[in-house]
Amino acid sequence: MPREITAFSNTLVKRVRSLRDKKHRRAEGLFLAEGLRILTEAREAGRIPHYLFFTAEGARHPLAVTLIDAVEGAGGEAIETSHDILSKLSGKDNAQSVVGVFPEFTTPLAELDRDASPIWLVAERLRDPGNLGTILRTGDAVGAGGLILIDDCVDPFSVEAVRASMGALFTVPIARVRWEEFVPWLRSGPAQLVGLSLQTDTDYRGASYAAPTFLLTGNEAQGLPEAYEAECDVLVKLPMLGKADSLNAAVATAVMAYEVLAQLRG
Amino acid sequence: MPREITAFSNTLVKRVRSLRDKKHRRAEGLFLAEGLRILTEAREAGRIPHYLFFTAEGARHPLAVTLIDAVEGAGGEAIETSHDILSKLSGKDNAQSVVGVFPEFTTPLAELDRDASPIWLVAERLRDPGNLGTILRTGDAVGAGGLILIDDCVDPFSVEAVRASMGALFTVPIARVRWEEFVPWLRSGPAQLVGLSLQTDTDYRGASYAAPTFLLTGNEAQGLPEAYEAECDVLVKLPMLGKADSLNAAVATAVMAYEVLAQLRG
Repeated sequence: MPREITAFSNTLVKRVRSLRDKKHRRAEGLFLAEGLRILTEAREAGRIPHYLFFTAEGARHPLAVTLIDAVEGAGGEAIETSHDILSKLSGKDNAQSVVGVFPEFTTPLAELDRDASPIWLVAERLRDPGNLGTILRTGDAVGAGGLILIDDCVDPFSVEAVRASMGALFTVPIARVRWEEFVPWLRSGPAQLVGLSLQTDTDYRGASYAAPTFLLTGNEAQGLPEAYEAECDVLVKLPMLGKADSLNAAVATAVMAYEVLAQLRG
Repeated sequence: MPREITAFSNTLVKRVRSLRDKKHRRAEGLFLAEGLRILTEAREAGRIPHYLFFTAEGARHPLAVTLIDAVEGAGGEAIETSHDILSKLSGKDNAQSVVGVFPEFTTPLAELDRDASPIWLVAERLRDPGNLGTILRTGDAVGAGGLILIDDCVDPFSVEAVRASMGALFTVPIARVRWEEFVPWLRSGPAQLVGLSLQTDTDYRGASYAAPTFLLTGNEAQGLPEAYEAECDVLVKLPMLGKADSLNAAVATAVMAYEVLAQLRG
């Protein structure tokens, strides 16, 4: 039976709300995800929240019923609460009907199977959580084997990243590594490292991609460090016909990923 | 000579800060843009702010000097202020060194020259300001003739949209129209209307694009209305190999725009 929480001052409410801050996420190893669609995606991927908050009204939806059963079956806690508290947890006035609290998870590099997919996404010092989430969403769409986050990237478990991923956080494996660990792993098997760069004349449509292709996108403002570009098997650029010299990082990654996909699928 | 403002209570500071709200932007016909790079882009496109706020330190940059001259030459006001007030205006702790207040501008449909570019972007009921700004940025990159906003789209002059556009707001013409006005204008000359849709089996790589191509993207959650899809000359879809059934709207627009660009450039 779900318990009910009605007070903003409730300890669990305060604790869950604090997960909007990276410091607390790190301390607890927990993060927030919201919305029936995303939580159902999570459930189907085998990720069940430790806590599930919902309103009496929200609990009537068949997907919510299935979620509540799954949470209670897995030893988690299903908690009925008010719309106001749900809004407070999600940080949005117009809250989703369910909010889940999940344990963080990443995949060790050694557990990634490079034969699992012809395309892998790699991002270096990504700063914007929306970009990270959007790249995960694109990764799901192109069937990427995973997203490898290099050096100091923004937290993939931030509320903004989870939201932008639209559930792909739960379906696309994420590894977080230093460049010094990534390169030896990459070179221990077949791999083509493709870097997006402004320092090349090779158009992205003119290059030949060979599976497994690892698509490397650099920091939003600075792009890739020179030494990282030097490690790439090929550097490519996208045509820029306007005044600006770069695209949004998530956009550039997607245009590249779809080109690689088209080539590799023939 | 720039005047100096040091008080948060200053009437102009309050008025400018209020431009973060759509209601005030609409009442004043003014909007905010920030950052030396973006304001310089604006200046080069012939857009000079009515008011330019900067710190004493920020004013030392050669680009800031040029901006201040341009503003004063155009009869605008250059205003030195504190870092704290600049942060308050921009709504970010880590404010840019300059903030400009510009008059809003859009382009009437009748003034768009369809021969000016082989690619045009069209968005319908777009909800997210970051998506709108990112689509403008992509529009600049592919040399789009403009962005046509159909029906009730998010405000392109919101702080988030301006920021995400990275200056493209000033270089890509924007028209705002109802669908009922758009279709007669579109059909009054050569045009291929290409809709992104889930209701088709035509892969985006399999379709043939003919200039001028008008790329139509629908609402983030709902896609295009059926009647709008029926008006399209061709509907195309992007491969979706994962669990989700859609991409981020700005990402999907960019993947499409680069495919059209590649085909039209041969």
